[in-house]
Amino acid sequence: MSSPSARQLHLNAFIYPAGHHEAAWRHPSSQPERIFDADYYHQIAQTAEAAKFDAIFFADGPALRSEARYSTAGRLEPITLLASVAAATERIGLIATASTTYYEPYNLARLFSTLDFLSRGRAGWNIVTTSTDAAAENFGLPTHPDPAVRYERAREFVDAALRLWDSWEDDAIVADRDSGLYADTDKIHRAEFVGKHLQVRGPFNAPRSPQGNPVLVQAGASNDGRAFAAQYAEAIFTAHQTLGHAQAFYGDIRARAEALGRNPDHVKILPGISPFIGDTERAARDLEREFNELTVPAYGLYQLRGITEVDLSTLDLDAPVPIDIFGDAGDVTDNKRSRKQVVAGIVERERPTVRQLLHRLAGARGHRVVTGTPEQIADTISEWFTHGAADGFNVMPPYYPGGLEVFTETVVPLLRRRGLFRSEYTGTTLREHFDLPRPASQFAGDRAASHAG
Amino acid sequence: MSSPSARQLHLNAFIYPAGHHEAAWRHPSSQPERIFDADYYHQIAQTAEAAKFDAIFFADGPALRSEARYSTAGRLEPITLLASVAAATERIGLIATASTTYYEPYNLARLFSTLDFLSRGRAGWNIVTTSTDAAAENFGLPTHPDPAVRYERAREFVDAALRLWDSWEDDAIVADRDSGLYADTDKIHRAEFVGKHLQVRGPFNAPRSPQGNPVLVQAGASNDGRAFAAQYAEAIFTAHQTLGHAQAFYGDIRARAEALGRNPDHVKILPGISPFIGDTERAARDLEREFNELTVPAYGLYQLRGITEVDLSTLDLDAPVPIDIFGDAGDVTDNKRSRKQVVAGIVERERPTVRQLLHRLAGARGHRVVTGTPEQIADTISEWFTHGAADGFNVMPPYYPGGLEVFTETVVPLLRRRGLFRSEYTGTTLREHFDLPRPASQFAGDRAASHAG
Ligand SMILES: Cc1cc2nc3c(=O)[nH]c(=O)nc-3n(C[C@H](O)[C@H](O)[C@H](O)COP(=O)(O)O)c2cc1C
Ligand SMILES: Cc1cc2nc3c(=O)[nH]c(=O)nc-3n(C[C@H](O)[C@H](O)[C@H](O)COP(=O)(O)O)c2cc1C
Repeated sequence: MSSPSARQLHLNAFIYPAGHHEAAWRHPSSQPERIFDADYYHQIAQTAEAAKFDAIFFADGPALRSEARYSTAGRLEPITLLASVAAATERIGLIATASTTYYEPYNLARLFSTLDFLSRGRAGWNIVTTSTDAAAENFGLPTHPDPAVRYERAREFVDAALRLWDSWEDDAIVADRDSGLYADTDKIHRAEFVGKHLQVRGPFNAPRSPQGNPVLVQAGASNDGRAFAAQYAEAIFTAHQTLGHAQAFYGDIRARAEALGRNPDHVKILPGISPFIGDTERAARDLEREFNELTVPAYGLYQLRGITEVDLSTLDLDAPVPIDIFGDAGDVTDNKRSRKQVVAGIVERERPTVRQLLHRLAGARGHRVVTGTPEQIADTISEWFTHGAADGFNVMPPYYPGGLEVFTETVVPLLRRRGLFRSEYTGTTLREHFDLPRPASQFAGDRAASHAG
Repeated sequence: MSSPSARQLHLNAFIYPAGHHEAAWRHPSSQPERIFDADYYHQIAQTAEAAKFDAIFFADGPALRSEARYSTAGRLEPITLLASVAAATERIGLIATASTTYYEPYNLARLFSTLDFLSRGRAGWNIVTTSTDAAAENFGLPTHPDPAVRYERAREFVDAALRLWDSWEDDAIVADRDSGLYADTDKIHRAEFVGKHLQVRGPFNAPRSPQGNPVLVQAGASNDGRAFAAQYAEAIFTAHQTLGHAQAFYGDIRARAEALGRNPDHVKILPGISPFIGDTERAARDLEREFNELTVPAYGLYQLRGITEVDLSTLDLDAPVPIDIFGDAGDVTDNKRSRKQVVAGIVERERPTVRQLLHRLAGARGHRVVTGTPEQIADTISEWFTHGAADGFNVMPPYYPGGLEVFTETVVPLLRRRGLFRSEYTGTTLREHFDLPRPASQFAGDRAASHAG
């Protein structure tokens, strides 16, 4: 057993309505009738918190995500949802996805600042530029902007938000009842952000939140996405099928961060892992097969088209997938959808039939599915963690809530025994769980900067 | 004592950080150090819920509201905050203010839909076009749009939001595990909203929420504001100093609603009332004076300028306010700031000095301040309620949390004894508390309408 001060794993519960497997809602162990109820999410968060997970995480997008005919397509808005979860938990981090393409910085900065206050420092923002083209028409835009334009706006958006969050210095509030002085307005600054896409004057209408600003998380794997992540992200969610790909990504991001003058240890890299767990490997494989047999091919083809822009619906389900139909798997940093390369890699390595490919992706949309005994799952986690591929994981149970419980009851104790994962929280904020510093206000000490109250 | 089936009062707790009196934060009975803590608001909401209030309500604006030097200028974002309160309460309605000028309908519709789900049908939206000019520069706009343009956008915004909230018919979800059919996509419709200011295609990415849509509340008193309220609002917050003004407003709104073919009983009109309560009238007046003596004239002048666009700072504090400085008090439905007429009315009726006027407004920014014994407060409430001036009240305690407790402990029992206010909730949703119908989906039964899944 290693010493408790050794490098520790970070574990998030990535929550997907009925579970990450696309047919989860059809399985008797899932509870699709509860996916719009607060208590369902409270229960999941409390399970993750009892296991001392770093955080729970929700994906999001401002459009109907998928084919409602075959899947639980609707979803709750995650910031609001996490504000509710904050009231039902004490320690666990709360990470919500929100789009820089379809929000305004002043509004979104307020939502996250409020979440950070309500949770006493547990908020994280998964910054995305939105992957669904369909979002554009929900906002009166003729088309979804190109990735380069989206990331240009994303940079401005985060810069503006950081200035808003910093606009009250930490000691701006005096609150002297006797003299009647509430705040030292020399310590409340305008953001004065002027960019190409966005202009935000400020000041912000709230003090600095407990964490200074929410933990910044990112989940883009394209070249633009990586450059953005290396500059801004304090945690990165990613999807890899093989140790080699994960190591390459891990090394690339850390090198990029270092080149930008950042401490690479302040960028936690967390691949997704979707565990099918059984007492025996055989039982685990049977469970995975049970889920896969509940999939509807039309839905899998629809999802695959969404990820890759390639339509396989004219092919025989039991014919092999043409080897080069998704392009060159080696080209992992191009500017197109990075998830496409994950699919191309599976085809290249495994030569599946169409049906087999759909099953491979049904588990977690391209994230790694690990099927086996608790020991086998813990071995995979340990291997990636100790071989330069991950600082922790986004745990993506195929079904909720039970799929998380099995993981916390059987895998987490093994990780603890190996000295890889905490038995108690040592801090109260998400920054503390993730071992990240609390940033100082950009304006602190800068009395010459423009200010207003 | 009247029969329990008699017309019942509706009571909201209008929550303002440290209290509604502008100097509340300086008074020893307030708790300004807790105004960014969730538990402070949970406690207030639980107090209101224990007294069976209909709802709690938060104002809002996307800009720093006032002079941070002299007051608790920052605030939490209310939708997020109410999501937290939802988890700490069971029955009470939850009304948040949000701006149609500075939000996008798809985003805001999601926040309120989620709040309605999380609270199992307790959400309300106070629709405002934003009164603070300073908001514009936080969103890259050169100027705050004119009221007419703001209300034009507000109408489109609410129309679009209503179409989004309706886009899944109530029975769209089938969730048949055996067949694999999750939703009947013929019952999921695109919003297809195309207006002058806004275009929103849809469909929405969540089913219809428990109330169908959140209760629509409005708080504008100008001519445009009243026309908007008469068409859309199910509850109206308003500010009046005299029974006569309140009656005129009440009659006007109901006549306008009726002219539009609406049932006027489905528009609840709720003036604000800020109670200073004492065992004797003398004790109540002393308490009010204590608060007024804590005001800072510079702050009062700043606030007055914000409400009226008139600057009194060059006048002697103890000189009388020039009688016509705020214009003609009779002209109550013009298109300028409606609050200005409230101020003009006070000057005309009371002929105050500048300092006296500042004290008159310090209590609740133009809302009626009632100072007296519990009986006297209950008398005023009963009089307005039974004389065609109000369906209930926005209760605006001068200080929190104690100011609400005094009201619930001393005034509410008197209202019950008079048969005017419930002893138990009879429903679970805000619509049920307010005696409002749950609207049917616009698309229900309309199979020819455009749909998509
Ligand atoms: C774990 C994980 C979660 C993601 N969650 C979202 C999400 O909630 N919303 C979204 O629009 N995109 C999400 N993405 C997709 C990324 O934002 C990104 O669009 C995608 O990985 C392609 O990368 P790129 O934007 O750099 O091209 C997620 C990706 C990963 C790996
Ligand atoms: C009880 C009450 C609460 C209000 N809350 C807000 C608010 O939170 N945000 C806001 O911008 N305006 C608020 N207002 C102001 C109105 O939206 C409106 O701007 C003002 O009454 C002037 O009316 P008009 O818009 O019809 O000219 C409130 C008004 C009242 C009476």
